[in-house]
Amino acid sequence: MCSEYAHFVDINDYPTEKWEEIFSKAHTIKEFLKNFRSNDFSEKVMATLFFENSTRTRLSFQSAMTTMAGDIIDLGEHSSINKGESLKDTIKMVAGYSDIIVIRHKYAGAAKVASMYATCPVINAGDGEHFHPTQTLTDLFTLSEEKHTFSNLTIGVCGDLKLGRTSHSLCRALSLYPNNHFVFIPCDGLEMPDDICDFILKHNCTYEVVKTIEEKIDTFDVLYMTRIQRERIEYNYDLKNFILTKQSLKTAKKDLLILHPLPRNEEISVEVDEDERAFYFKQATNGVYARISLIKMLLDHKEQTELFQGEVMALECNNRNCISRHEKYLPHYFVKTEKGFRCEYCDHINNGLD
Amino acid sequence: MCSEYAHFVDINDYPTEKWEEIFSKAHTIKEFLKNFRSNDFSEKVMATLFFENSTRTRLSFQSAMTTMAGDIIDLGEHSSINKGESLKDTIKMVAGYSDIIVIRHKYAGAAKVASMYATCPVINAGDGEHFHPTQTLTDLFTLSEEKHTFSNLTIGVCGDLKLGRTSHSLCRALSLYPNNHFVFIPCDGLEMPDDICDFILKHNCTYEVVKTIEEKIDTFDVLYMTRIQRERIEYNYDLKNFILTKQSLKTAKKDLLILHPLPRNEEISVEVDEDERAFYFKQATNGVYARISLIKMLLDHKEQTELFQGEVMALECNNRNCISRHEKYLPHYFVKTEKGFRCEYCDHINNGLD
Amino acid sequence: MCSEYAHFVDINDYPTEKWEEIFSKAHTIKEFLKNFRSNDFSEKVMATLFFENSTRTRLSFQSAMTTMAGDIIDLGEHSSINKGESLKDTIKMVAGYSDIIVIRHKYAGAAKVASMYATCPVINAGDGEHFHPTQTLTDLFTLSEEKHTFSNLTIGVCGDLKLGRTSHSLCRALSLYPNNHFVFIPCDGLEMPDDICDFILKHNCTYEVVKTIEEKIDTFDVLYMTRIQRERIEYNYDLKNFILTKQSLKTAKKDLLILHPLPRNEEISVEVDEDERAFYFKQATNGVYARISLIKMLLDHKEQTELFQGEVMALECNNRNCISRHEKYLPHYFVKTEKGFRCEYCDHINNGLD
Repeated sequence: MCSEYAHFVDINDYPTEKWEEIFSKAHTIKEFLKNFRSNDFSEKVMATLFFENSTRTRLSFQSAMTTMAGDIIDLGEHSSINKGESLKDTIKMVAGYSDIIVIRHKYAGAAKVASMYATCPVINAGDGEHFHPTQTLTDLFTLSEEKHTFSNLTIGVCGDLKLGRTSHSLCRALSLYPNNHFVFIPCDGLEMPDDICDFILKHNCTYEVVKTIEEKIDTFDVLYMTRIQRERIEYNYDLKNFILTKQSLKTAKKDLLILHPLPRNEEISVEVDEDERAFYFKQATNGVYARISLIKMLLDHKEQTELFQGEVMALECNNRNCISRHEKYLPHYFVKTEKGFRCEYCDHINNGLD
Repeated sequence: MCSEYAHFVDINDYPTEKWEEIFSKAHTIKEFLKNFRSNDFSEKVMATLFFENSTRTRLSFQSAMTTMAGDIIDLGEHSSINKGESLKDTIKMVAGYSDIIVIRHKYAGAAKVASMYATCPVINAGDGEHFHPTQTLTDLFTLSEEKHTFSNLTIGVCGDLKLGRTSHSLCRALSLYPNNHFVFIPCDGLEMPDDICDFILKHNCTYEVVKTIEEKIDTFDVLYMTRIQRERIEYNYDLKNFILTKQSLKTAKKDLLILHPLPRNEEISVEVDEDERAFYFKQATNGVYARISLIKMLLDHKEQTELFQGEVMALECNNRNCISRHEKYLPHYFVKTEKGFRCEYCDHINNGLD
Repeated sequence: MCSEYAHFVDINDYPTEKWEEIFSKAHTIKEFLKNFRSNDFSEKVMATLFFENSTRTRLSFQSAMTTMAGDIIDLGEHSSINKGESLKDTIKMVAGYSDIIVIRHKYAGAAKVASMYATCPVINAGDGEHFHPTQTLTDLFTLSEEKHTFSNLTIGVCGDLKLGRTSHSLCRALSLYPNNHFVFIPCDGLEMPDDICDFILKHNCTYEVVKTIEEKIDTFDVLYMTRIQRERIEYNYDLKNFILTKQSLKTAKKDLLILHPLPRNEEISVEVDEDERAFYFKQATNGVYARISLIKMLLDHKEQTELFQGEVMALECNNRNCISRHEKYLPHYFVKTEKGFRCEYCDHINNGLD
């Protein structure tokens, strides 16, 4: 099944050359906007459909669009739409009202469903715990701006590595480049999942696991901090090894790049904000330029997008958070893999065991 | 009482020649926007006041405005305004902030009240169960685009014909054109009201009532489906005669126009979406062009609007959903008719019987 | 502590010459926009952060921005942001997305905190019961438009003078001009606070207190009505002396200027709206021009702003509604005064007595 439009459902739908093209254009736009105004998106309308609240991501997209003189129509965070209406119908309608759709949804695969039915490009602004590709674009663009390379890096990744969608995505992305080494600093019980570790090794990168930030901070080119949510860890668990302070930066490199997808909790001490290695607020600003570049690419793109490689099967996906479980009219596409049938909406492997 | 501005409270406030002018301009705009951008509404500000939720209609207006480079200020769906403030005061304030006002309200006549006090044009985006004239504009524009005529048509109207404000409005509008025949297919207990049937006959059009979609579908030029809300019918009532399927389309004309104001429930089967006679999503898109054309007309309009033909009387309207019952400062305008005193806010006939 | 940007936290941060410059430009803009369009704010993005609901003020700012072809990103009235995120982090992020920030917050000093961390200008749209300087700007601009002077005026101020932030601010502002006389008409128990009365006398203006509107209305050049909230007065208290009616206007001057910050309750009778001395709706419209002029000034401004004059101390402010009590990372700045230590966030005097 093909769509006539370009979409951005996952960053891995595009080859790394395409990423670099996006970053190169984002860099040009960033430099240009320091001195000039642009009305490149003038009279273009973006629909922001946030079925799940994410003010931060919504504002970033709205800023990207309006900075280029484009306009926004917003479903509203507490909209009553979609109650008793299929996602298909909502998308068909909204596509008739806009030039590009940005969708955030609680179920995995929702952005792909939007791509199936939209008569305009679709951007995935997060589909449940599945993908959040524009955050990864933001992270990589910041690396590109500050390190000018995606290779030969030592990257510390600290905090909740189990459920941190953005750290998974970053590790996968950087594994596609040569000679990167990852140092994981997970809280107890929140270790990096096996499939990410396997992916790293399979692509000839390496990783190790340590107990504290301080242990290896002197080797890091990048330190990717992630939010630790108190409700996911034991009540009395001491977080001090996972909190970045002025003290823990003592032995760090002078050009260390400290990143965080925000919002932060206590994992970065406020005093670190003044350190010139703290890039998390600049990172958020970079997200606007990365998104402008992405929107530009999608609006200009003229090629078809292939949405499914597999076949429609008489199976039902076992993942309860898969969009195909909630929108009944959807054809059930699966790809046969060694490990089982991979659902093409949510990427869950169905192997009869779950 | 006159207003210095043009308003769009009801489609019947304008003669059919004006409708056709709107559609003709909407057609030109639609063709133009396929290839060009327009900034005709540049620096014009529309205020969207949705005191009652209607995301679909709000988005359509916002798309109309922003597509032409206009801007929106939105009251917000959960605004606390109007608590303890009169509608008059809200309108006076908002009119000072904008060039055109779009109002949706739960009480009949609210848009007329807005027209009384606004120092800019007002568009009625639905006032309770009373009017929803831009939906009718959308329906008629789609007919105009696809049939190129409003005469000599056979129009099937199916579903909830009792409370379906949009089907009433469509029947009234098409009755003003010669030689139209209506075929009603109502669910039990949800029949077309007598006043609409009388209106049709009075204007020399005709109608009949049938039991199933299939019965006469071979004669239809247009099939207007309406949403059936389960809570309005008996629990066990079989809807199958009122559901449009691939099967029921078998004997239909090749150029049948299937319309639906959306959102749909189960009354149109999803498989019908692929049929080229299914126009309901295109209809929604047409709504944007119809609204652009309307906004243009109102912003350009220089004539006064007469708001009341009757007189202020010492009566109170008996309709509990009439705006005059809820905004105490309003003068009570009535027109004396054969059947009783017609309230000029909500059009309720007060005859001492209710 | 300095900020590189210009901010508008309180009207008294600027000398009266600057106010007059704002009004003079606002007047020019108002005249210009009657005949022309402007795209002066084209591709500029304003972020409206209303942590506390104020639809009226939000709409006024959004109208100001969009009228000049600027764009808005809005946090949303029911945003979940700031739950578990510091105000600093929110501001840092939003500043990266926009060219100017408008903030409304329930705690005193929040706009100053925003000014500390924003990398763009900040406008205070109300910080709790502390300041609401753009309302005062609106009030003064209306005086400037209609009276062409801020001196030699007799100003009646009626209603709730105790908690009416806007009447306090107006009295302070007009006290800086020569030969003004204030006539207070407070409801019982809602008298003007001593510090405002002292301020008036200290600046060589005068005041008196009367019991009814009628008593001195014949002397008024301006009558500033304020909203009386029923829950702040005794159940059976008779408001008739504080309600402006057609009757009470009988002896008033022909060029009396009746103002009200809106929304009104019952304190101005609806019949007064038709009187040509009623300026409260025009006043609301003036608010848009005053805000446009202010935004222009801040965007063009190139000077640094000094945010604190005092020193960081090991004290905690005793005002429970001071932002410094709720954002723990803030340095505690105080200025030593005769009466005690004035907190530089909320202006509360800490003297060991409260």
